Amino acid sequence: MKSTVYVVGGDLRQITVAELLSKDGFSTAKIGLSETDDNLSKLKNADIVVLPIPVSYDNVYINAPMAKKKLTLAEVLDNIAENALVLGACISEEVCQMLEARKLKYTDYYKREELIIKNAVPTAEGAIEIALAEMPITLSGSRALVMGYGRVGKILSKKLSLLGAYVTVSARKCSDFAWIEENGMRAVHTKDLIGHIDEFDLIINTIPAVVLTEEILCRVSDDALIIDLASKPGGVDFNTAKKLGKNVIWALSLPGKVAPISSGRIIEETIINILAETGV
Amino acid sequence: MKSTVYVVGGDLRQITVAELLSKDGFSTAKIGLSETDDNLSKLKNADIVVLPIPVSYDNVYINAPMAKKKLTLAEVLDNIAENALVLGACISEEVCQMLEARKLKYTDYYKREELIIKNAVPTAEGAIEIALAEMPITLSGSRALVMGYGRVGKILSKKLSLLGAYVTVSARKCSDFAWIEENGMRAVHTKDLIGHIDEFDLIINTIPAVVLTEEILCRVSDDALIIDLASKPGGVDFNTAKKLGKNVIWALSLPGKVAPISSGRIIEETIINILAETGV
Amino acid sequence: MKSTVYVVGGDLRQITVAELLSKDGFSTAKIGLSETDDNLSKLKNADIVVLPIPVSYDNVYINAPMAKKKLTLAEVLDNIAENALVLGACISEEVCQMLEARKLKYTDYYKREELIIKNAVPTAEGAIEIALAEMPITLSGSRALVMGYGRVGKILSKKLSLLGAYVTVSARKCSDFAWIEENGMRAVHTKDLIGHIDEFDLIINTIPAVVLTEEILCRVSDDALIIDLASKPGGVDFNTAKKLGKNVIWALSLPGKVAPISSGRIIEETIINILAETGV
Amino acid sequence: MKSTVYVVGGDLRQITVAELLSKDGFSTAKIGLSETDDNLSKLKNADIVVLPIPVSYDNVYINAPMAKKKLTLAEVLDNIAENALVLGACISEEVCQMLEARKLKYTDYYKREELIIKNAVPTAEGAIEIALAEMPITLSGSRALVMGYGRVGKILSKKLSLLGAYVTVSARKCSDFAWIEENGMRAVHTKDLIGHIDEFDLIINTIPAVVLTEEILCRVSDDALIIDLASKPGGVDFNTAKKLGKNVIWALSLPGKVAPISSGRIIEETIINILAETGV
Repeated sequence: MKSTVYVVGGDLRQITVAELLSKDGFSTAKIGLSETDDNLSKLKNADIVVLPIPVSYDNVYINAPMAKKKLTLAEVLDNIAENALVLGACISEEVCQMLEARKLKYTDYYKREELIIKNAVPTAEGAIEIALAEMPITLSGSRALVMGYGRVGKILSKKLSLLGAYVTVSARKCSDFAWIEENGMRAVHTKDLIGHIDEFDLIINTIPAVVLTEEILCRVSDDALIIDLASKPGGVDFNTAKKLGKNVIWALSLPGKVAPISSGRIIEETIINILAETGV
Repeated sequence: MKSTVYVVGGDLRQITVAELLSKDGFSTAKIGLSETDDNLSKLKNADIVVLPIPVSYDNVYINAPMAKKKLTLAEVLDNIAENALVLGACISEEVCQMLEARKLKYTDYYKREELIIKNAVPTAEGAIEIALAEMPITLSGSRALVMGYGRVGKILSKKLSLLGAYVTVSARKCSDFAWIEENGMRAVHTKDLIGHIDEFDLIINTIPAVVLTEEILCRVSDDALIIDLASKPGGVDFNTAKKLGKNVIWALSLPGKVAPISSGRIIEETIINILAETGV
Repeated sequence: MKSTVYVVGGDLRQITVAELLSKDGFSTAKIGLSETDDNLSKLKNADIVVLPIPVSYDNVYINAPMAKKKLTLAEVLDNIAENALVLGACISEEVCQMLEARKLKYTDYYKREELIIKNAVPTAEGAIEIALAEMPITLSGSRALVMGYGRVGKILSKKLSLLGAYVTVSARKCSDFAWIEENGMRAVHTKDLIGHIDEFDLIINTIPAVVLTEEILCRVSDDALIIDLASKPGGVDFNTAKKLGKNVIWALSLPGKVAPISSGRIIEETIINILAETGV
Repeated sequence: MKSTVYVVGGDLRQITVAELLSKDGFSTAKIGLSETDDNLSKLKNADIVVLPIPVSYDNVYINAPMAKKKLTLAEVLDNIAENALVLGACISEEVCQMLEARKLKYTDYYKREELIIKNAVPTAEGAIEIALAEMPITLSGSRALVMGYGRVGKILSKKLSLLGAYVTVSARKCSDFAWIEENGMRAVHTKDLIGHIDEFDLIINTIPAVVLTEEILCRVSDDALIIDLASKPGGVDFNTAKKLGKNVIWALSLPGKVAPISSGRIIEETIINILAETGV
């Protein structure tokens, strides 16, 4: 018989996780995902507890925007059986300590490589949506720069290229250059960007470091659109960009915003992998 | 020496046309495209006069939303030299008569095959932008139906397919089926749509006839997004769709909205072709 | 009940046709496709008779290289019932007369648009096989010219492009140029080819006219490979090419050579379409 | 001033290396690459010496099939100046000892990641050429399995997919599965292959271990083509495959065979990278 899963807190992504786990044969229940009162004492029946993204914003309350009333992390964790497996995302140091104090096993599903890869798809689609909405020219035929060739850089540059953009990717490693060129794109070494940055209609940064400094920004075309996908502190010197009148959009956490149901599906698939590996 | 071109009325597309013709060596001037007073008498110097899309909404005034004051079609045409070539778009029967009464040669650049093909790119990108913005799932992995395999159908279905959607195209001809399948997509005969219409997350119509009738609409998934790209009267029975609670977006005239500068470039390239063929 | 089909003469393609028609529920029989004696009198049971490609090379004997003994066209046709439908390919004027003299209904399946489109796939794959075998460089990164943008030109140029070649297509129409560029390739007007012909590593002709004349050939790089896919008289001035030491391969009738089973499948699908349309 | 490079032994690849280095401004000379007598004493002028692939088959003679007479490794190495850099490929333990005994700096350019990636392109093209030549069906529409998702697996599976094959890739890691599916292909876990192996028209192995054992082979379709790209001992139990009558082709060292000039170019680009990194 398959395990019993409780999904506690979150948004449409977590509702999707619960629905898909049900379809896959798990007994599932939801807490903190609707306007009904939640009976936390039932949580002790859970073999697996799925917490949201992030688990908590303040280390006090569960991140549960759809709940009727606020749920503290402490009351939730206190109701989980000792042998249950807790699955959460972006688990802070403080939350880790709370879990460990209660001797609960836990895994951060947001650190799984396959989830990071799959999440790069809605991130790339979100960036493309922004570019389509903001640019007065078509992506087809535009000159686009993608900074960085990690998961998002790989998937986004490919999609832009397939949509007909002339794509340049900046990176640092000879092996990345080989892959970039094999994929029919132009590779530029990050250190040489300054000599090319004026060529682009669209600049998308995926590198989590301030790479678009004043020295670079002042050479960007006034007609160019800059999209920064890097998490805090971001890849753009925003004050300087504003001062120079550059068109910058900082787009964070795109998967949950642009495709919450697909994001939920990705999480569910990752949970299935975790359970297969842990033998639950 | 290259000809003198006057661009009269219109929007950012016409401004782009003027700029690009200048770059290509033509003497160009603009009328009705800014907040300055226009001296129509100069129009007599024009070898070529470019009118907007459409030339006029009411057969009285030139379509010139950026002009300081309204310009009548009559006063514009009266100032054009008899041997000039007039290039316009969506020229109504009434406007044709006015042109012919003045013995002016004219061509509708919006009827040129290469323009229609090239305009299918911004149309397809606009449809993709809507789909990305409105759907809670990623295009990648979604099940999409494109109705019709004309210029827009061909380009849009290919782009959706490249973005990872599972694309079905409905058409009527064996030869279209062969092309659709050669492009890695599924072909369905229009008459068999009713048996498949419930399978799709995204339905995009390109056929200028009411193909999404009540009989079909009632079988469409409640979660599906319907985008209608067909010009009036459109391809959807909108009243029924509303009654049934279906999610329909009627998206018209996308090129000028989503990519005015690219649209202007397309017009300019078409004008160059027309001039080459007419030996101007 | 489905019709009875006799497949008479031909090669692995016709054997495949018979097998697939059986799978689709037809009663099928083969004549002239093996080393056994054939009883032609059974042919009168056929509702449909499928003849090979071409039906005959000499207008006397059926094209039946796998038969135990030669079959004359006359004896085959004399045994076909008057109300049967005869399906053949590349039916000569003389064979038409023989069919009409016997009041037999017939259709040339090789003239069907969907067959011509689908056959362009094995033709394109055959050309790619030759290019891979003969060139000392990879297709990826090579500079290829495809002459003509008909069915074979469209499919072949796309495949070369997907394999990483820099593809130029020569054509004559503005609308073709629009499609070629929309597909990410460079378009050159046929009349301007002479100024570009020295740029290519690979030149593939699909135009059934002698377009590679001495004037053009003498500018082709000595390292280039020329593949001529045009049926007789071919698109290359072969004598001059030989004299100039150019590397030319004339590749004819590729579908039956490179992919006989797929070719048979394409014929069978076309026959199904013909029968659906004729209501058999 | 740029360095002086001597290219010693090898084939068309090494000749290409010498030509391209010359174009890039290096002084170059060739030894053992033609029917002229070689003066080894000039080797002392070399800043860089490029040896072939492999450097030697027998640890006695340089691999120099185009040379007028055999060159021993010892006489070549004895003539190299102590401060020169030796670049070779597939350098055996014995050759390493000979280089070290002479205190020569050396690097194996065949172990560079970017070369291995780039060489996967001619390898993939070679495998496609074999598939096109040997299969009676088109790649378009065929069902292909690629075993392994390393450099060759990634590039080959993508090319097959672009050519219209339905591609399945077998791998072991969740993250590989995510990439495979993101690229529009089906992923199968290596341990589950036995349940799917009968589905394929084409099976290409890239894993350097005997994965196609008797247990698997006996389930392969008799019509399937198996191409083994794995270096010795290969990925197929060849004796069993022969006994079972399976159609197996073991294709080794494809880059030098199918595209010697592109392979030479890849080596030259890699040498440029090595020199840039070592500051030569």
